[in-house]
Amino acid sequence: MTPRTEGRTMHSPPHQHGHSPNGTAQHGHDHSRTPHQARSVALHRAAVTELLAPLLAQGRTETLALGDALGKGLAHDVPAPLSLPPFANSQMDGFAVTSADLPDGGAELRVVDPVPAGAVPAALDRGTAAPIMTGAMLPAGADAVVPVERAVPDRFPAPGEPNTVWLPATAAGTFVRSAGSDIAVGERALAAGTFLGPAQLGLLAALGIAEVTVRRPLTVLLATTGDEVLEPGQPLPAGKIYDSNGTLLESAMRQAGLAVVRTAIASDRPEELRALLRSHAGAVDLMVTTGGVSKGAYEVVRQAMEGQAAEFLHVAMQPGGPQGIGTFDGVPFLGFPGNPVSCLVSFEMFLRPVLAELFGSPAPRIPVRARLGHSLSSPEHKHQVRRGTLQGDGTVRLEGGESSHLMHALAGSNALVHVPAGVSALAEGDEVEVWML
Amino acid sequence: MTPRTEGRTMHSPPHQHGHSPNGTAQHGHDHSRTPHQARSVALHRAAVTELLAPLLAQGRTETLALGDALGKGLAHDVPAPLSLPPFANSQMDGFAVTSADLPDGGAELRVVDPVPAGAVPAALDRGTAAPIMTGAMLPAGADAVVPVERAVPDRFPAPGEPNTVWLPATAAGTFVRSAGSDIAVGERALAAGTFLGPAQLGLLAALGIAEVTVRRPLTVLLATTGDEVLEPGQPLPAGKIYDSNGTLLESAMRQAGLAVVRTAIASDRPEELRALLRSHAGAVDLMVTTGGVSKGAYEVVRQAMEGQAAEFLHVAMQPGGPQGIGTFDGVPFLGFPGNPVSCLVSFEMFLRPVLAELFGSPAPRIPVRARLGHSLSSPEHKHQVRRGTLQGDGTVRLEGGESSHLMHALAGSNALVHVPAGVSALAEGDEVEVWML
Repeated sequence: MTPRTEGRTMHSPPHQHGHSPNGTAQHGHDHSRTPHQARSVALHRAAVTELLAPLLAQGRTETLALGDALGKGLAHDVPAPLSLPPFANSQMDGFAVTSADLPDGGAELRVVDPVPAGAVPAALDRGTAAPIMTGAMLPAGADAVVPVERAVPDRFPAPGEPNTVWLPATAAGTFVRSAGSDIAVGERALAAGTFLGPAQLGLLAALGIAEVTVRRPLTVLLATTGDEVLEPGQPLPAGKIYDSNGTLLESAMRQAGLAVVRTAIASDRPEELRALLRSHAGAVDLMVTTGGVSKGAYEVVRQAMEGQAAEFLHVAMQPGGPQGIGTFDGVPFLGFPGNPVSCLVSFEMFLRPVLAELFGSPAPRIPVRARLGHSLSSPEHKHQVRRGTLQGDGTVRLEGGESSHLMHALAGSNALVHVPAGVSALAEGDEVEVWML
Repeated sequence: MTPRTEGRTMHSPPHQHGHSPNGTAQHGHDHSRTPHQARSVALHRAAVTELLAPLLAQGRTETLALGDALGKGLAHDVPAPLSLPPFANSQMDGFAVTSADLPDGGAELRVVDPVPAGAVPAALDRGTAAPIMTGAMLPAGADAVVPVERAVPDRFPAPGEPNTVWLPATAAGTFVRSAGSDIAVGERALAAGTFLGPAQLGLLAALGIAEVTVRRPLTVLLATTGDEVLEPGQPLPAGKIYDSNGTLLESAMRQAGLAVVRTAIASDRPEELRALLRSHAGAVDLMVTTGGVSKGAYEVVRQAMEGQAAEFLHVAMQPGGPQGIGTFDGVPFLGFPGNPVSCLVSFEMFLRPVLAELFGSPAPRIPVRARLGHSLSSPEHKHQVRRGTLQGDGTVRLEGGESSHLMHALAGSNALVHVPAGVSALAEGDEVEVWML
């Protein structure tokens, strides 16, 4: 498990300062920095955006059948190639009529042949009513539908049998879905960057579109580090712990639509980690490490990144303060801290929202307002991210404490609870922003 | 597109009444029925639960590596095979001390060899302080950690070099994560039926568990119906529409972890649909059809199910009122209505929550409270499900109207908005229950 340092001033070694890949976001007069010189959450997210944005410019798209596009981000705007509905149709099972045939008090109309769905019906003669099923095309001349249960008798006559029906007065347009009432031909159906979930793919299908161009997902190298960390499934010597970061982050990344390459757990020898990263550098879009980014005596990731265009800094966030960012041999690199909760919070606060924004996949977390089930305190200069369970009554119960080693509490949570910088205490019942996991 | 009937009394043909697979939920004195004799949402959901519960009893489990278990439902309770943390460790980079050595005013202690992470350190002699990294095992005899920045000097001496450090008075337990403070050995780590997301899999990894027994996902046959419905990607003759239900529901089902078998679009000839269903009956756990369940003249699903243990009824819900439920040749069957929005609402209201409850996958939708951005009206005897967009300020904006053909509006929504039966109007600012899609 890797050092996590809370509430300390982080001084990057001087040789790391000249290499920032992030330009002004990381340097210069940064008035949003806290008294501890930590970078704000917003600024670090902007730095991650700047790091990954060039990948978007590289024409990383592919064209897929609808069935393969679930969970991807749309590459281009899609205009509607036809209107929806394509033609005026009935909203009810009933009688298609010309509304002018039905004065106040209603009228008796002759019933003509029914309109089958999928056919182009004959024009409706004045003084007649055509049985019509929901979704069937309105005959030319008809401008309204009277639901069958308002007719007398309230049923359809047997087909072919001559018959009449009494129908009440009905305004033009009643129970008619007009052509283009959902979307008109040429209108933008979906915008570039839209996450393609069931509804979006269903809309494309309704528009007759069978293939869609999406942004190709990134391939991420995920390397967990630490001499003290073992893969699950083997005996645990005293002093060692099992690696949960690899499983946690790989799952979160895959759930977010990324392709993940997992390395074996890296040792605490910087030259070994460097060789490991180098062996994958040509095949991945992004490298993510866990652990070894803080200011302890043995910080393998910091050491392995020496000479690279990367910096290590403290974000004004709890947990997940220590962060690394830059490039390794030109490949974008993010160094998350080593505690599992810190890892997940780092992913949710920095990588996931940037992927959603830049690539349209994963779907963004929607901020939800909830009432705190407890009072809490929070370090005033940090954005605190607590874990909690949103209840049916709109309150959120905190799970576990502030500490970043509480995996069991995290596994029992369904939400992240945000306490922004500048807030040091909240009372029970106060409204907070919550992200559903 | 298939008939959808709103606000009408549905009378099932008498021959369908003796075959209910759902027992008391569908018969007897059902006081919750509305004046229109429609079944409540809760009762229909209970009927779907009863229909699918036998599948759970069939020992449908499989044992998977953690990496393959993402998105599955846990089959059995998992007790913790070890405590987390497994041993007392340091929460900070600092000095491990015996608190009794640090009286008020602090004391100068001799610095001994540092504690590397992953090792079992030598016991701490009285009067000494051991440099310790976050996560490293606390030496026997130590009971507190003093963060390095509170030491004088506030840094670690070079290893091996004899040195002393001044440390302030520190209470026992300070900055120590005690063994079992997250979970104790033998405690239940995860309950049967838990959805396995990143945090749950991360917890299993932290516990050293490399394989997990999950419930096997159901295989669903999905058949869309209608002579007027065409696959996307071909020219559209007048009067026809493209099938969006197939893409919409297949995507929603796959997103919910189901294995989906899609048939070609079924015609409106009942004997053809019957043959199609029969050809798949041995290979699937559930059959879902769309369309042909209402009370129009051409209702292919109703007709194809004649002689089967299935019934067609009206649920007091808008959209998605007409529903079919039962078995076809002994295989559980659900007949959704034919409009796309009705299909998705049927899936979200009936199938998805029952799968989440019975099988632990997909993850349940968490009800969220939001304030309406508009006033609305709703048929008093029905549970209305509107589509909307939850905004950052906690209000929800409705997208499109009540009508079930509005795919574009659905694709622009991120939430379902619930207006329960018994409510006929809500004002702007009223609180509603929202499900994030």
